[in-house]
Amino acid sequence: MTITAKIHLVDVTLRDGSHAMKHAFTIEQVKEVAKGLDEAGIEYFEVSHGDGLGGSSLQYGFSKVNEMELIAAAAEVCKNAKVSVLLLPGIGVKEDLEEAVKAGAKMVRVATHVTEADVAKQHIELGRKLGLKTVGFLMMAHMAPVEKLVEQAKLFESYGAEIVYVTDSAGTLLPHEVKERVSALREALSCEIGFHGHNNLSLAMANSIAAVEAGATYIDGSLRCLGAGSGNTQTEVMVAVFERLGYETGIRLYPIMDVANEVVAKFMPRPQEITGSSLIMGYSGVYSSFLLHTQDAAKKFSVDERDILVELGKRKAVGGQEDFIYDIAAQLAKKKTAETIT
Amino acid sequence: MTITAKIHLVDVTLRDGSHAMKHAFTIEQVKEVAKGLDEAGIEYFEVSHGDGLGGSSLQYGFSKVNEMELIAAAAEVCKNAKVSVLLLPGIGVKEDLEEAVKAGAKMVRVATHVTEADVAKQHIELGRKLGLKTVGFLMMAHMAPVEKLVEQAKLFESYGAEIVYVTDSAGTLLPHEVKERVSALREALSCEIGFHGHNNLSLAMANSIAAVEAGATYIDGSLRCLGAGSGNTQTEVMVAVFERLGYETGIRLYPIMDVANEVVAKFMPRPQEITGSSLIMGYSGVYSSFLLHTQDAAKKFSVDERDILVELGKRKAVGGQEDFIYDIAAQLAKKKTAETIT
Repeated sequence: MTITAKIHLVDVTLRDGSHAMKHAFTIEQVKEVAKGLDEAGIEYFEVSHGDGLGGSSLQYGFSKVNEMELIAAAAEVCKNAKVSVLLLPGIGVKEDLEEAVKAGAKMVRVATHVTEADVAKQHIELGRKLGLKTVGFLMMAHMAPVEKLVEQAKLFESYGAEIVYVTDSAGTLLPHEVKERVSALREALSCEIGFHGHNNLSLAMANSIAAVEAGATYIDGSLRCLGAGSGNTQTEVMVAVFERLGYETGIRLYPIMDVANEVVAKFMPRPQEITGSSLIMGYSGVYSSFLLHTQDAAKKFSVDERDILVELGKRKAVGGQEDFIYDIAAQLAKKKTAETIT
Repeated sequence: MTITAKIHLVDVTLRDGSHAMKHAFTIEQVKEVAKGLDEAGIEYFEVSHGDGLGGSSLQYGFSKVNEMELIAAAAEVCKNAKVSVLLLPGIGVKEDLEEAVKAGAKMVRVATHVTEADVAKQHIELGRKLGLKTVGFLMMAHMAPVEKLVEQAKLFESYGAEIVYVTDSAGTLLPHEVKERVSALREALSCEIGFHGHNNLSLAMANSIAAVEAGATYIDGSLRCLGAGSGNTQTEVMVAVFERLGYETGIRLYPIMDVANEVVAKFMPRPQEITGSSLIMGYSGVYSSFLLHTQDAAKKFSVDERDILVELGKRKAVGGQEDFIYDIAAQLAKKKTAETIT
């Protein structure tokens, strides 16, 4: 095994974890986590509503505390670690980013669906103009063929992104698929490559290793896996695993374990297990935002929610197509009735 | 990716899960799980005290229900699935195995420490004589160099074992280490190769894939990960993952998910997360049976339990050396005092 560059672990407990917390992080919780991450040696960690800046809304769930206050609280307690923010163009706007910078943010990750990098142009340019470390995030990376992913990543790079991420939003990629994608980007781009994994198929750690072996140098994780779906790659476990594999993360194991187990574990509302719904989301490649509608449709039409999710995956449904869920449920119910009669 | 032989998933919920259940499985629970596994298409599943036949004792914890009754109850409800039992020579005796066969067991897995295969000779021979599918289980496989592992596996094969397992009891092996071990056995043996993983480093699934890619055809798992330490490779998730990878397991996804989520999840006493203790056990390669003594010694000598576990790992401590834990704690405390004074 060759030792490559240093691996930068970016902790997203205070952003992806916001989903698991139903966006109810308090100032105290954010301060405690931020302080712990800083003391452990984390370089960047993300603080935002689960759906990024501006996500606090009826559609995505209202934040208990204004995220700008959370960003400021996190930045205030850090000696070395820097705060990142997530921005999904369309949900967050430029003014949100400017405000986040005033609150202390030093990195922005501009996220789009894997085929829509072009909508991020002005936000990436703004990130650079504001002096932020600027990152492009290609979400639902499994939904595009590798060539399309490369094309979109090149767009991000051309706008000024310093890192481009392969984002396995649905926790559905297999290790060889991660390797193929990261290798293709490594070959085609000059900037650094990142990977953001979810654990729906119990492969978040395997995929993170595959990404690093293929040339990624930025890897996301969260403490105790706190995040959407089955949660993220477990940050404190990655520190141990990458050390064992001979990579340098610059993070101290016991302090990062302490913030996971003495702080996060104490306030997380439920453990991040792989349950029925999250497994099927990973299996079918469907994003977690579809889940509530799917459960509702399954009940309404008396069909198995898993069949709806698998069908959504086959048809490559994307966010915004929620009506589609009810159409599919109706079709499945019709099919079921027909089968029962014949 | 080439499609190799069929993968046999062996479910150990009702054996390794016995640790997590503090050996308190009831007849009803065993029947429900066995029935679910059978209906889903599982071929073999294990029912025994966590430490194998005869494990019910003051030292290893008394079973709530006699394991022979549990084995009989499991066998009774199955149409196709067969019951396996675990036997650790020294804990279980030949008479236990004979009794288990009368209760309905069809497979025995004879387990020894990785360097002690020779103590299993008569038990493996008895398994064959009784007409059982007979398996050799090399526990704590990380504690021996690959050549030693091969030598010991050859002993198992020479006694008549039809499958030899690489058993990552402490959840400490990395995927390339699993691959190296399974490949070496695949090359040196004629019998089939198995792998039993634990999730302490969040690598159980990665290791199970590595094992299959290196030629293993029997892979252990448990429903919802129920098992010692951070638990086992999650059976129902493996069904989804191996299907996605193009391997045939013969197990139906929805029924195996149902027994995991509708039966096991309802009675498991706590979720199988990667906590502080289990992470350090995987990181240092120490078996979970040391944990209670370590916590006691840490308190007694006011040292960090993690330092004791790491030191035990370095010194390659094995079961039976529990006094060693207190020696190490005393040494660490002395060192700490010396450092404070100077």
